Amino acid sequence: MDTNQLWQRYQEWLYHHKGLDLYLDISRVRFDSELVESLRPRFATAFSDMQALEGGAIANPDEHRQVGHYWLRAPHRAPRPELTQAIQATIDQIQRFASQVHTGQILAPTGKTFTHLLWIGIGGSALGPQFVAQALSPDRPPLQIQFIDNTDPDGIDRVLSQLQGYLDRTLVAVVSKSGGTPEPNNGLAEVKAVFAAEGLNFPRQAIAVTSPGSKLEQIVQQQGWLAHFPIFEWVGGRTSELSAVGLLPAALQGIDIDALLSGAAEMDEATRITELTANPAALLALAWYAAGDGQGRKDMVILPYKDRLMLFSRYLQQLVMESLGKALDLEGRLVEQGIAVYGNKGSTDQHAYVQQLRDGINNFFATFIEVLEDRQGHSPELEPDVTSGDYLNGFFQGTRQALYENHRDSITVTIPRVNARQVGALIALYERAVGLYASLIQVNAYHQPGVEAGKKAAAQILDLQKQMLQVLQGAAHPLSLEELAQQVGGIEQIETLYLILRHLQANQRQVAIQGDLGQPHSLKISARS
Amino acid sequence: MDTNQLWQRYQEWLYHHKGLDLYLDISRVRFDSELVESLRPRFATAFSDMQALEGGAIANPDEHRQVGHYWLRAPHRAPRPELTQAIQATIDQIQRFASQVHTGQILAPTGKTFTHLLWIGIGGSALGPQFVAQALSPDRPPLQIQFIDNTDPDGIDRVLSQLQGYLDRTLVAVVSKSGGTPEPNNGLAEVKAVFAAEGLNFPRQAIAVTSPGSKLEQIVQQQGWLAHFPIFEWVGGRTSELSAVGLLPAALQGIDIDALLSGAAEMDEATRITELTANPAALLALAWYAAGDGQGRKDMVILPYKDRLMLFSRYLQQLVMESLGKALDLEGRLVEQGIAVYGNKGSTDQHAYVQQLRDGINNFFATFIEVLEDRQGHSPELEPDVTSGDYLNGFFQGTRQALYENHRDSITVTIPRVNARQVGALIALYERAVGLYASLIQVNAYHQPGVEAGKKAAAQILDLQKQMLQVLQGAAHPLSLEELAQQVGGIEQIETLYLILRHLQANQRQVAIQGDLGQPHSLKISARS
Repeated sequence: MDTNQLWQRYQEWLYHHKGLDLYLDISRVRFDSELVESLRPRFATAFSDMQALEGGAIANPDEHRQVGHYWLRAPHRAPRPELTQAIQATIDQIQRFASQVHTGQILAPTGKTFTHLLWIGIGGSALGPQFVAQALSPDRPPLQIQFIDNTDPDGIDRVLSQLQGYLDRTLVAVVSKSGGTPEPNNGLAEVKAVFAAEGLNFPRQAIAVTSPGSKLEQIVQQQGWLAHFPIFEWVGGRTSELSAVGLLPAALQGIDIDALLSGAAEMDEATRITELTANPAALLALAWYAAGDGQGRKDMVILPYKDRLMLFSRYLQQLVMESLGKALDLEGRLVEQGIAVYGNKGSTDQHAYVQQLRDGINNFFATFIEVLEDRQGHSPELEPDVTSGDYLNGFFQGTRQALYENHRDSITVTIPRVNARQVGALIALYERAVGLYASLIQVNAYHQPGVEAGKKAAAQILDLQKQMLQVLQGAAHPLSLEELAQQVGGIEQIETLYLILRHLQANQRQVAIQGDLGQPHSLKISARS
Repeated sequence: MDTNQLWQRYQEWLYHHKGLDLYLDISRVRFDSELVESLRPRFATAFSDMQALEGGAIANPDEHRQVGHYWLRAPHRAPRPELTQAIQATIDQIQRFASQVHTGQILAPTGKTFTHLLWIGIGGSALGPQFVAQALSPDRPPLQIQFIDNTDPDGIDRVLSQLQGYLDRTLVAVVSKSGGTPEPNNGLAEVKAVFAAEGLNFPRQAIAVTSPGSKLEQIVQQQGWLAHFPIFEWVGGRTSELSAVGLLPAALQGIDIDALLSGAAEMDEATRITELTANPAALLALAWYAAGDGQGRKDMVILPYKDRLMLFSRYLQQLVMESLGKALDLEGRLVEQGIAVYGNKGSTDQHAYVQQLRDGINNFFATFIEVLEDRQGHSPELEPDVTSGDYLNGFFQGTRQALYENHRDSITVTIPRVNARQVGALIALYERAVGLYASLIQVNAYHQPGVEAGKKAAAQILDLQKQMLQVLQGAAHPLSLEELAQQVGGIEQIETLYLILRHLQANQRQVAIQGDLGQPHSLKISARS
């Protein structure tokens, strides 16, 4: 394609949302009009699937539930008036609570203003809040946020160490939809223990985000926590950023949640349009389909040229991979679908792996996120007429060109600046694109059967550990690994037992091991006396 | 393979380094003895290539230079006595300087102790220091580190805002091997301007890490900066963590750099062994080869089950992708090699994308990093005999099993704890594995031709911007995009000019644009009066 044709193609496919001043360019993905025509019937289906979803159809058959994240920013669209009311009431409750914390109407039990927010949640309960905090948190937020997003004991200690001296003015939020997810439960238990050791009144510093009626809600009510906020059953973890899960920490940090919601609502309007070229989410889905042959053959590399957006790729990793990474299609055929997502930020990543993107294995397509405004206020000129932002723009353009010339596809999303409205719009754009793409490839975007399986496997390992400790306590003499396995779980568990033993031994727990840990057959195991 | 065979395979391939107490398990990568036998001749070549490299052979023909990062932790192995001496002298200089800063022998010009370190560098000059800071920095480091690792004006503002009130006790380090990389130069220029505006004496708070004889070294000497430290020409950016680039910030943060170096030296000894099964780096290279058919057909997903190690994947992204992502093999044939690397941490990522890993597209192999010690000190039991660390171990084991059962390969690296010695060993293990794998697939691991091309493309765009501004200033009337392109760079630059204009316009710079920016053909452009 010569330069003139390419410029024609660029203009033909350039999408511009006037209200948001957001651009989308898919001209650098190599697809032709034949592909577009062949996909039109599937897009028609995708648009009507989406309409049914927004109308309240059952979209997650595993859990037999509706999927309603679009209602969160357009409550009047919810299929029942009590939902409309519940959504609005939750937003109001969040605004009111945040304002009461900021103005000191709600104080810590010591009478001090809350200055820190410890957010305990994992998966969708952390990734969205982390992305939005990095993108939008003011330099001096009313509450500084810290996250416990894992069950790593050392990681928990490190976060608590950062809060040392501020624990008595730290608001603790626990986020768990079911109330039964181990990671936030473990974080809660460890944090509670530290509060108790410091003589602090935990319930009067604690809030929760959870499903109405969950075990966690019962605890909250029994112990009299400061407040709790609902996660609606029709909101999935990876699309929960504009529910209480994301709005509450945003509001507490002083981020404009009305703008987050209105940006998303504006994008939702644009992505409801059923004309492919007028719908930016459909254009994105088309580009993904074209780049990876509808089979995820190319990884999605996300390169925002703006430090604030560095966590967008991690956020999208969950949204895209958990939604699309499915074994079966809607008719139960084995398809093993998905798209791998990674990336950090430009131009930094140019110094890390653009070498491979440009020259090496051609197994990806890039998505550039361009932000037009360099900074708030004036930029100094580093040389006549050139600022550091011009360099950033030059690196973005240079990389986009270099990739194209080497037959690597790319998409470019351009926003005027990073503010709450634009971030809301980006979230909504990708939520919808994932939903439409899932329809194109005929997978269910709204369940996650593999996550449940992983939880079960972990629970079995903990059970095995408990059984093993009982057997060891009752054993008359030290046992070899084989002997131990014969008594616990059978010989097929021998490797699992060995790995459990290594872990217990390293933590000076209940076992005593003789022999060389590098030579499993040499081991003799007993209970520690 | 039944459970018993699998346990035999596990034991057969289990590698254990006694001194470091480090394990490597590649039994969950599906390779057979035929593959191993067929690769033996290539491994023999790889080992002798590596020996030549360590002996001082020219390994980067582009820049006609030696590659000597292994000498950094075994100075006596350097091929010339003056190199041995220079390495040791640099380590001594770093130790002495850090100690003088810590004890207050070196003070900020205001007479205050330095409490903050602002590290300005990009690529290998940031990724290693960031990884090591997150892994090893004490909870209360003598100097708190902040990074400027991009030329994003807003990103720079944000870092400087975090330092507000502490600038007069902030030590600023600028890292640039050549002294000509735009990103650190721009960071330096912006930071200098802020120091000047605050009336601070920049040179007396500044240090540099740069090549002897570079432009940056000249500036340092002319302006009388506090100190400067050498990057040796035979150290590449992605293998510079154990040079002054990584040791200096580590020492300033109070991290034990002798242990970093000795851990790496110990691993280097183990990975010099020319017997495949006794060499953990060779085992890693074998596993990578087997997983991706020696063609990078599978992405490398890095999952450390430890918060401190979350940046290891970003560090490896550069080390692996920039080393292996090459268009040509050593004989100049087009091969488009590489391995894509991504990942964050477990169990957190289980709630993000293990759904896809387990059920979806099978285009990856996982590397689990297991850390045996849960935390310093005692762990509370959350239920009888169960700690939060047991959950973490259960999630790791459960995911490893679930992936294997679904025919997804994985590698497990196990270390006893995260300390400087182990981190040094991990760095050395992967440096060597990358070098050996590069030999297996016959690519040059030590150059990066694509990075240079990207820099040139960016420079051309800045040139075009300057030319355009000149043309606009001389124009008698507003120009259409076509007219402008005819006068600047030719019609093939029209899209680049359009993108430059959008960027300038958004920053209220020298251009005035009439028309609809979403409709490029409608635009009339003139210089802003």
